[in-house]
Amino acid sequence: MTPQKSIDETTVWQKILAQPAQKLAGALTPERIKTRVIPAGGRLSFSYAAMDVSDATIDLLAQASRELSLTDQFKAVASGSIMNVGEKRMVLHHIARGTPCGAVLKDGRDYRGFYEAERLRAAVFADKVRSGDITGSTGKRFTNVVQIGIGGSDLGPRAMYLALEQWAREHGSLALKAAFISNVDPDDANGVLSTLDPETSLFILVSKSGTTQETLANESLVKAWLARSKSLDPSKHLVAVTSETSPLARNSEYLDSFYIDDFIGGRYSATSAVGGVILSITLGPDAFLAMLNGAAEADALALDADLHKNAALMDAMLGLFERDVLGRPSVAVLPYSQGLSRFPAHLQQLDMESNGKRVDRTGKPLAVSSGPVVFGEPGTNGQHSFYQLLHQGTDIVPLQFIGFKKNQTAFDPEFEGSTARRKLNANLAAQIVAFALGKDDPEPNKQFPGGRPSSLLLGEELDPRALGALLAHYENKVMFQGFAWNLNSFDQEGVQLGKKLTATVLAQGGPTDPALAAYAKMLGAL
Amino acid sequence: MTPQKSIDETTVWQKILAQPAQKLAGALTPERIKTRVIPAGGRLSFSYAAMDVSDATIDLLAQASRELSLTDQFKAVASGSIMNVGEKRMVLHHIARGTPCGAVLKDGRDYRGFYEAERLRAAVFADKVRSGDITGSTGKRFTNVVQIGIGGSDLGPRAMYLALEQWAREHGSLALKAAFISNVDPDDANGVLSTLDPETSLFILVSKSGTTQETLANESLVKAWLARSKSLDPSKHLVAVTSETSPLARNSEYLDSFYIDDFIGGRYSATSAVGGVILSITLGPDAFLAMLNGAAEADALALDADLHKNAALMDAMLGLFERDVLGRPSVAVLPYSQGLSRFPAHLQQLDMESNGKRVDRTGKPLAVSSGPVVFGEPGTNGQHSFYQLLHQGTDIVPLQFIGFKKNQTAFDPEFEGSTARRKLNANLAAQIVAFALGKDDPEPNKQFPGGRPSSLLLGEELDPRALGALLAHYENKVMFQGFAWNLNSFDQEGVQLGKKLTATVLAQGGPTDPALAAYAKMLGAL
Repeated sequence: MTPQKSIDETTVWQKILAQPAQKLAGALTPERIKTRVIPAGGRLSFSYAAMDVSDATIDLLAQASRELSLTDQFKAVASGSIMNVGEKRMVLHHIARGTPCGAVLKDGRDYRGFYEAERLRAAVFADKVRSGDITGSTGKRFTNVVQIGIGGSDLGPRAMYLALEQWAREHGSLALKAAFISNVDPDDANGVLSTLDPETSLFILVSKSGTTQETLANESLVKAWLARSKSLDPSKHLVAVTSETSPLARNSEYLDSFYIDDFIGGRYSATSAVGGVILSITLGPDAFLAMLNGAAEADALALDADLHKNAALMDAMLGLFERDVLGRPSVAVLPYSQGLSRFPAHLQQLDMESNGKRVDRTGKPLAVSSGPVVFGEPGTNGQHSFYQLLHQGTDIVPLQFIGFKKNQTAFDPEFEGSTARRKLNANLAAQIVAFALGKDDPEPNKQFPGGRPSSLLLGEELDPRALGALLAHYENKVMFQGFAWNLNSFDQEGVQLGKKLTATVLAQGGPTDPALAAYAKMLGAL
Repeated sequence: MTPQKSIDETTVWQKILAQPAQKLAGALTPERIKTRVIPAGGRLSFSYAAMDVSDATIDLLAQASRELSLTDQFKAVASGSIMNVGEKRMVLHHIARGTPCGAVLKDGRDYRGFYEAERLRAAVFADKVRSGDITGSTGKRFTNVVQIGIGGSDLGPRAMYLALEQWAREHGSLALKAAFISNVDPDDANGVLSTLDPETSLFILVSKSGTTQETLANESLVKAWLARSKSLDPSKHLVAVTSETSPLARNSEYLDSFYIDDFIGGRYSATSAVGGVILSITLGPDAFLAMLNGAAEADALALDADLHKNAALMDAMLGLFERDVLGRPSVAVLPYSQGLSRFPAHLQQLDMESNGKRVDRTGKPLAVSSGPVVFGEPGTNGQHSFYQLLHQGTDIVPLQFIGFKKNQTAFDPEFEGSTARRKLNANLAAQIVAFALGKDDPEPNKQFPGGRPSSLLLGEELDPRALGALLAHYENKVMFQGFAWNLNSFDQEGVQLGKKLTATVLAQGGPTDPALAAYAKMLGAL
């Protein structure tokens, strides 16, 4: 790769900086609502009519995106270039679901072929668990599958499972129920285990390195719990997802193992075996495949250098304008779909761990603000919680709505003249407009200033294909923003210091730092 | 009440504004860690050694708090003054757990007596459900209880239940399992119902006004679901928590009803029957009573005018300094306890709905920024997610850690020389110090700037008493901040516009606003 620059180093930056927020009253016309829409894959579309950004500003952002070669940088990534400079790695998570830029062949290896083979191997394994061909060590059919992992080994797969559990139940493909153990707090594992029968429980240990402290501690706790039943063979109740070089690989303590490479970062791993094994077992291999196809659709669309045809790129550039020009430090993700209850938690990791960085790829401090705080809860729940601040607080928070035209579940009797589905989407439409246009009132505490921008990712139904596209849309958006800030979205050095200090607390003799010793003593951790 | 002023109108404000953030390197001594601790009730203590605020600044904040009569305003609230000026109501949620300022007697009514009587009535009812004296209409014992409510009728009670579910299981007092239906999205109700047997399920309908759209729609769906079983009598499976003037009160469609007044706001209602009925049924009446006692302890401590002895007031004033002087727009709440997984979601409502306001109590626009964005997830999970940004992002986010010395659950085998509990708290100690002091490194992406402030609420164990104190600590903190901004923390006019626009979408003929019509059409809501 040639040396890259950041958005504030482009020739159009001073012009972009001079652009004001667009007043939405007057601008938010039916014509604009109809035309400011970009397909995003998986039957999703990205609507940005209610963003407070003028067409003139968008033209400047398009110029900046071309000058920064943002889609060329994506092509370089997807073709196997070394992008993660710090760790000298490729960044190849797109390969888990397709080849957006053609086959990646290096050192005699077909990268896509490997991931497709692993997916198929997981599908065969999943079908055997689902059919009862593979049982627990006492011969009973597995009813529950528990993922033991943390960070990307937990948040993405958990969000995906919750998103599709109802869909699979309605489609008759929900064969086992999933649960997740992540926190090193033993109350987490004990809470999950208290609801399970060891004879019918399968555990998936997920750690790329095979050395994650929390995950190994939880595995140890789960094994001790399994060993309480004298009749059980724990190795018949455990599966590993790891890298081929990890201590967990090809290990007789596991029923089977599935592999990923170190060029797939944890927060980008939901479409690899990290998500694939548990989703194939619970929802079925076909659902997982459909999810991958949806993601591949979004990836293909993200290659388009035309900002007006590239939803992920448009989302990224509008977000940069909100963050660096309008100075808005946080973003709310508001899915009008209960299935997406934990999707914002996944996005917190994806976005904040990727772009929460102070220095660029060359080590120079950034001249502008990088990744925002991301938070959110499903609507309409959030309306009865933090929307008060979003409507009438002293700061403006850009909003990312997500919606669907259909429910996952069929049972929806009318009440007071409308179904719950219609009420849900009536609320969503009303919120977009209330935020954008506001309302005057003689009483000051009833005034709504409006001018609160939002975008909308709208799908037909929250099905596997739509979910895959949604996932990939955000992965690609975050990647484009990282490129535009010229930072490394694919390392996470900020997690290391805490790990090192923790080790000194647990080491013989305890920590030498006096403040750390004092806190460790206060917390009973010595 | 005499007219109040806001913190920027105090005589010491210019001096406060001139105070810099304190450099923590050098300041975070063992002596400071030992002495900057204030009891917070329920065996909790509030540690603020790692806040980047000097003793000199704290002295100025103490002066401002006295000049603003913050604890006197609390006394006025707890004595029954009209505080919610907009809605011309008293604000008396403290009465649900005690009489911090003595009995409130008005118009021949003993306010505390009423809430104590309602609590006892709920306890008797709960014991009958727990023992099987009250059964479903087919005579089967209830095994599951489902709260139908949204906002404060959901978030607080749900967070409390999840916080104590493991505790109750270990103490042998978990008699029924709780679930919650909140979202108007029918996928929410259908998802919960798919796991239940109608014959053994009890539902608690919670709506103070009896008119909440989501809650009534969900009640209707649940009743239709119950009615599918021809043998069932739905009225034997439903209980109401509402106000005495609501249509749900004294209604033969419910097995029983429990009451609260309009002077208890939704987000402050967890210690009333809104939380009390479901928590008494599931965890036992004694656990709920212990929770109230913990809250009452925190309330009593919050009356102290001495900032150095009042944990909630100290937390409030330090937060104001971070927000308005250091310009930090968000706060992360980071509980090192899996039980508190949804406590941050409750705090989002409590804080952002209370203090996300643009105008003061007289209608004048605020001169300073009010309520921050609040977000958070349990540690150590968050460490593998958004902590990257907290350590190395371009913005500083003040942190609120919560920790406990003991687990709720006993099973905690050692692994690699330490229990999971010890690992958990070693991580917590390490994070506080890593954020505060940082670390230099020759490689820029491995540098930690430090100077990232945090406080710690530390308890012995997450038991009912500690949870009650934790809940009340934050209620009182938010209340003090609202007083200091001279805003009304007890209305939520910002939720009204969305409701009105939603009604126009659902009304015959649809909305007249062209933008709203366009969005409603796009979303299939017409």
